[in-house]
Amino acid sequence: MAQDRPRVVIVGAGFGGLTLARALRRAPVEVVLIDRQNYHTFQPLLYQVATAGLEPEEIAHAVRGIFQKRRSVRFVMGTVVGVDWNASAVLLDDGDRIAFDYLVLAAGAVTNYFGIEGAAECTFPLKTLEDAIALRSHIIRQFEEADRHPERIREGLLNIVVVGGGPTGVEMAGALVEWFELVFRKDYPHLPMNRARVLLVEALDTVLAPYDERLQQYARQQLRQRGVELHLGDPVARVTPEAVYLQSGERIPTRTVIWAAGVRACPLADRLGLPQTRGGRIEVAADLRVPCRPNVFVIGDLAASRDETGRLHPQMAPVAIQGARHVARQIQRLLRGQETEPFRYRHRGSMATIGRHAAVAELKGGVRLTGPLAWFAWLALHLVQLIGFRNRLQVLINWAWNYFTYDRSARLIFHIQPISVNELPEIKYAELENPEHDTS
Amino acid sequence: MAQDRPRVVIVGAGFGGLTLARALRRAPVEVVLIDRQNYHTFQPLLYQVATAGLEPEEIAHAVRGIFQKRRSVRFVMGTVVGVDWNASAVLLDDGDRIAFDYLVLAAGAVTNYFGIEGAAECTFPLKTLEDAIALRSHIIRQFEEADRHPERIREGLLNIVVVGGGPTGVEMAGALVEWFELVFRKDYPHLPMNRARVLLVEALDTVLAPYDERLQQYARQQLRQRGVELHLGDPVARVTPEAVYLQSGERIPTRTVIWAAGVRACPLADRLGLPQTRGGRIEVAADLRVPCRPNVFVIGDLAASRDETGRLHPQMAPVAIQGARHVARQIQRLLRGQETEPFRYRHRGSMATIGRHAAVAELKGGVRLTGPLAWFAWLALHLVQLIGFRNRLQVLINWAWNYFTYDRSARLIFHIQPISVNELPEIKYAELENPEHDTS
Repeated sequence: MAQDRPRVVIVGAGFGGLTLARALRRAPVEVVLIDRQNYHTFQPLLYQVATAGLEPEEIAHAVRGIFQKRRSVRFVMGTVVGVDWNASAVLLDDGDRIAFDYLVLAAGAVTNYFGIEGAAECTFPLKTLEDAIALRSHIIRQFEEADRHPERIREGLLNIVVVGGGPTGVEMAGALVEWFELVFRKDYPHLPMNRARVLLVEALDTVLAPYDERLQQYARQQLRQRGVELHLGDPVARVTPEAVYLQSGERIPTRTVIWAAGVRACPLADRLGLPQTRGGRIEVAADLRVPCRPNVFVIGDLAASRDETGRLHPQMAPVAIQGARHVARQIQRLLRGQETEPFRYRHRGSMATIGRHAAVAELKGGVRLTGPLAWFAWLALHLVQLIGFRNRLQVLINWAWNYFTYDRSARLIFHIQPISVNELPEIKYAELENPEHDTS
Repeated sequence: MAQDRPRVVIVGAGFGGLTLARALRRAPVEVVLIDRQNYHTFQPLLYQVATAGLEPEEIAHAVRGIFQKRRSVRFVMGTVVGVDWNASAVLLDDGDRIAFDYLVLAAGAVTNYFGIEGAAECTFPLKTLEDAIALRSHIIRQFEEADRHPERIREGLLNIVVVGGGPTGVEMAGALVEWFELVFRKDYPHLPMNRARVLLVEALDTVLAPYDERLQQYARQQLRQRGVELHLGDPVARVTPEAVYLQSGERIPTRTVIWAAGVRACPLADRLGLPQTRGGRIEVAADLRVPCRPNVFVIGDLAASRDETGRLHPQMAPVAIQGARHVARQIQRLLRGQETEPFRYRHRGSMATIGRHAAVAELKGGVRLTGPLAWFAWLALHLVQLIGFRNRLQVLINWAWNYFTYDRSARLIFHIQPISVNELPEIKYAELENPEHDTS
């Protein structure tokens, strides 16, 4: 490594971290990119892995593969558990430390259980490939068990409850009913498939709340029509291994609760001694730097960045990607002795898919799409955003296969042990037990 | 299910069990196919999953998908832990029992550690998809650790030891050096790749012992030329978490020992009270029936079937497949009141691949091939044997990708917990504690 170049340490190889490392390719810096996984995960398609439509490897890409030809980017697989502000170094879980000249925190978000009783213990998150494989395996196991012991169906074996009516919850619920209708109905001819229920539970009175009212209405109607039972305006009170209890008092017997109710900043954020907003996001100035830490930036889901009216940016990939490009420019400005500029997020639109031929899209300039056109646009957009030609080709083939054969090929049960990303390993560093809120 | 048809219960959905269930499609029987996994695994390509060349889902196929259109085949996902001979029923691990009119044992083989100290605890088997994913993840983890802590390389972090010089060991060793040379050399530019060693340990003086001497010589020379260190004629004495000790006294420091030294009958075989050969295979008559059990057949790796000279058939897929077709015919003969016929295995040849453009093939009639021709023949043969058009297409694309780009895309670390297939769950059945050797 070129020792004389200033070192930019990026924590997290998600959309933000990866974009930043790429954007710095011509900058006179040395980049160290740290992630706990050795691959980048294309999270928007995790729900398709969980519903057997895609294979896990197709939506992931080894980080080292991306930077094989960039000697200025060094990848470190490790878990960052803190920052030694005095020494300007990040601390890894095995005791290593990596010094930085610039630090960019892009560690993303984890599942937010909002302190609801039983949620963390009894529900399935969907943030990692392991989560997706574990969920896929669990759902198929319920059907296998029901096939052998139909008397247990009444215990809710075939009830899948999705908590959260945002895009993730809607996409998940839509994919589940399709999977059941197209595949399980044929796979389990002896099962009473009318007793396989997909329930979407949402605290608000609608799904896709931030979208235009007409799109919300379309989504609700499409979900219902496809067989999703909507429980709107009825928040989850608690979850047990046998059931979900709603605040209305309703009890839904189930062994499968998918938690798509929201995210919070990854637990690293709580260990840095930096001001945070609700949900743990780190407060940043307009240029995405941490106030009083002139060499520390935060991007993506972890950053409490705001628009001109002071509203927090949504926690979605485009904000992270644009933030990364912004930070790449700012680091180069700082290296040249220039002032930083404020970050301006340009919202180009949002999309959510419900199922075959059904999606909603809200584009810049008030353009709203529903139906097959929105659905094909969603497919195309996600395809081009995938990393790597091979991944694109394989996802395209799988989508075409699923589309024409009405099949879901990856319905295999793997014995996998997901590791919670909601918890950080224990800190081994004396100096972090008493983090100094030094603002020099 | 048609209750009046005699029921054929098949234990195991490997090559034998699957072929048999398909071959019985026009027979007037009800088929119950039982497997502990919900999918069929194409075991000959497991080593390519373990070396990141293929994705796990590509070499597996959901059993229910294969028989969706065959109402006469019923699949049961479960682990058979014994047979109640008096009641003519197989016993599942959860206490269920499934009655049979005909029973076909096709449960295959598991890893044979030959009682070598530390082998079962400290080595990686390669019999299931989970094994392959766990091994892939483990190997990449060693490189990641070496990249962060080069001082640990001297502890054998980058030494991979393959035990066993049969086709599996040879293919594994060849794939490993290719993976290291083509991918890791670029992924880890800071690592001294000359210290990444692949060692093949074999008790005999050669690899591919059953093959013609010229093919053995070719394989040894190709392996050496590609960088595999051959330790021939030096059996493993014991294995610890830090090293392999050979009988010569040599100590090879390593954290990765892949056990490809041999197989033994799956543990179910030991619980049936039936005569077994060395390696646990169940003794069968010439028609593949268990002597004195006129309605019980054994096929594949589990069967101690023999050729005319009394030599045991090799434990390979073609024997299982031909055995399955034979048993399908015999069951139909028995149903018609006819005598059974003896099983005659027709050996068409054997092949093993070493690496890019290098393979050996020994075909019927004394035809021997080496080099690119044998290699392409090997690829083509394995491609057509895969189950499902989609799997074939995806494997073909991945092979073409790997061939032209010199890449291995699936190099992702998953946190997976393989479940040992060498152990059966505890028996819950009183009657099995004292198995009656009733031969009525």
